[in-house]
Amino acid sequence: MKTTIIVIGDELLIGQVTDTNSGMIARLMAPHGWEVEQVMTVADDREAIREAVGRALDSTPVVLTTGGLGPTKDDITKAVLTDIFGGELREDPDVLANVREVVERRGLKLNDLTAAQAIVPTSCRVIQNRVGTAPLMWFERTDGHILVAMPGVPFETREMFSSAVMPMLLQRFPSPDHIEHRTLVLADISESALATRLAPWESALPPYAHLAYLPKPGVVRLRIDGRHTDAGFLKKEIDRLADELALLAAGNLMCRGDITPARCLLDMLVERHLTVGTAESCTGGNIAHTITAEPGSSAAMLGGVVSYSNDVKRRLLEVSEASLEAHGAVSIPVVKEMASGARKALGCDIALATSGIAGPGGAVPGKPVGTVCIAVATPWGLWADTFHFPGNRERVIDRATTTAIIRAIRELQSHP
Amino acid sequence: MKTTIIVIGDELLIGQVTDTNSGMIARLMAPHGWEVEQVMTVADDREAIREAVGRALDSTPVVLTTGGLGPTKDDITKAVLTDIFGGELREDPDVLANVREVVERRGLKLNDLTAAQAIVPTSCRVIQNRVGTAPLMWFERTDGHILVAMPGVPFETREMFSSAVMPMLLQRFPSPDHIEHRTLVLADISESALATRLAPWESALPPYAHLAYLPKPGVVRLRIDGRHTDAGFLKKEIDRLADELALLAAGNLMCRGDITPARCLLDMLVERHLTVGTAESCTGGNIAHTITAEPGSSAAMLGGVVSYSNDVKRRLLEVSEASLEAHGAVSIPVVKEMASGARKALGCDIALATSGIAGPGGAVPGKPVGTVCIAVATPWGLWADTFHFPGNRERVIDRATTTAIIRAIRELQSHP
Repeated sequence: MKTTIIVIGDELLIGQVTDTNSGMIARLMAPHGWEVEQVMTVADDREAIREAVGRALDSTPVVLTTGGLGPTKDDITKAVLTDIFGGELREDPDVLANVREVVERRGLKLNDLTAAQAIVPTSCRVIQNRVGTAPLMWFERTDGHILVAMPGVPFETREMFSSAVMPMLLQRFPSPDHIEHRTLVLADISESALATRLAPWESALPPYAHLAYLPKPGVVRLRIDGRHTDAGFLKKEIDRLADELALLAAGNLMCRGDITPARCLLDMLVERHLTVGTAESCTGGNIAHTITAEPGSSAAMLGGVVSYSNDVKRRLLEVSEASLEAHGAVSIPVVKEMASGARKALGCDIALATSGIAGPGGAVPGKPVGTVCIAVATPWGLWADTFHFPGNRERVIDRATTTAIIRAIRELQSHP
Repeated sequence: MKTTIIVIGDELLIGQVTDTNSGMIARLMAPHGWEVEQVMTVADDREAIREAVGRALDSTPVVLTTGGLGPTKDDITKAVLTDIFGGELREDPDVLANVREVVERRGLKLNDLTAAQAIVPTSCRVIQNRVGTAPLMWFERTDGHILVAMPGVPFETREMFSSAVMPMLLQRFPSPDHIEHRTLVLADISESALATRLAPWESALPPYAHLAYLPKPGVVRLRIDGRHTDAGFLKKEIDRLADELALLAAGNLMCRGDITPARCLLDMLVERHLTVGTAESCTGGNIAHTITAEPGSSAAMLGGVVSYSNDVKRRLLEVSEASLEAHGAVSIPVVKEMASGARKALGCDIALATSGIAGPGGAVPGKPVGTVCIAVATPWGLWADTFHFPGNRERVIDRATTTAIIRAIRELQSHP
């Protein structure tokens, strides 16, 4: 089923808030084979909303709006929807009771502004918002096209869309098709090189399967999407295709499943009862942050040292003065000593270390901005290499972080 | 000047990637008085792109597209633009030379797919992409409406939009007005409390000045935008208004200028010849990362310890077993010892420390998810407090990071 999402709010158009609702809704719909055909972001403006809603209802059978339902004067969505679908704005006693309950649960008193949330178009079917004050509204046009107006607060949208709106939509538009997805994460290959390698396989895919390329800095994710009326057949087929793809990916396969490199590393470490730590110079704590951003990371992550100054490299990681003097901080000998020193200082099995020049300053002859030495120390060895990453400071830090994590995964893969 | 942004890519509609380009472009255009009227997100689909581009060009004089320019077969934007603006697709030797240079700078070899980036519509004026392989394309319709096609990689879009596209747009649509901005960053006050305090002042602003509220978690930025034909008059007036506003902001003023809290902290430290370091548990390296993300941070930042495990807290920060046992890791005594320990271990003047429960797991009775103890150790004292941040793991880490940095700024402000 094809849908249009209309994101309403001035704050989005001035770049003050980033829309995450449309992506979240798309991800929640995808397993049911529902697709977002278009997302439109419009201002809190009567004409802009009316125009977008009209166009969306003409082009897709289902339209979802988020935002524009707050009690402040900017929010005029309800009035526009009443114009479009007819009826009039009237206070709904059930909604008022719900708004009061939500407000009081937050330890607050109901004021006039918030009570106005209970005024809804008589032409809609109300879906009570259990986690916020703005009621959801289900409209149906005479041609059977549906519009559901939802609040803009991401947590409310997610909660109400998954628990109420999606089930109602599936009941209203039942489908004979089942859906399957398999994701593989690859490293050390560009999207274009991969596309060349996979072209013959991809063009021979059966009509019920599709391959999507999802590149991110440092990795390429490949997703096989399948769609068929026979659930058992589809599952077997998509599994078979994923296995084929894994063989074709060969040496570039990092992990199966739609997960980040950090999650992949953590899962491998936990499975093998190994611990990890970091010694970061140019990445400045970003590797530790990326690993600890994953829930449950404390099962393998012990900690790290951000050795930004040479003094801290000596103090906490026992990097030798001799190596610093002979080779400079951005060198293979120093980054190796950092990794070994981190294993000892932190008491971890695996240590990731970086030393480089993130820029814009700091470049020296032979070591331009983007030069990053990375080391991975393990109980079975000490790997290190020098990389040259393109881009500005942020991107160099980002790429060095991803690369260090991928190198650690590679070290684990090469020593099963 | 009103613009429409068209964001192109299947990956956005399935929620695999979140569009941050449109907000970034809006923020970069705002200082020049340019507005985004609508954002449309469409698939890598010939008809969808053609329809969106046509509609956008009819409704605003400037249309910007991002994405859809990759070398894989999904990316068909160039063909659609050739259909719309005429001409034909042809290899441009200058673009090919640029693509080759960018590829070789990355230490890679040019393959056929990437070389295809050099095939561009003869109807466009090419803007060479200095930081990526997809050339930017400037089209002009017979009615003078402009479309600029830009790559989707956020770093490339930002770099090329700010350095090339925006200057070209300003030249193409010159304005008699001069523009001035002054930004103030405030902390420890909510947007609504601030709005109440500033209401009388704001309503008395002259017609050529406007006040914008730009709240971010933990801080509120206030920006005075001025616009006038007389550059000298405007500069003086906007300076005067900014001084007035700084007086009204009083105790909540953190810094002047559109800078991050980390930049503000670093500037204060460098000015006072002080050094800084971190000791992070729940923020897992994010404070160090946030500080070192700023160019030139090594002038004040010595390093940090990510003491995720209690063992690392003891080993590297000399946190006492007694405190850990009596109060637990998430406690004022422990976070104070972490901060003091970091000053000693790293040899820095100021140390920021955090210990908390970022979730989703780890809550204990009396210490729910979101509980974070923060300490700042200085040569003149040791400050600490406990905070309760709302939201998921990512948000708790983020808020704790910003709060710790703001507390350090406060400590510096209170001891001039």
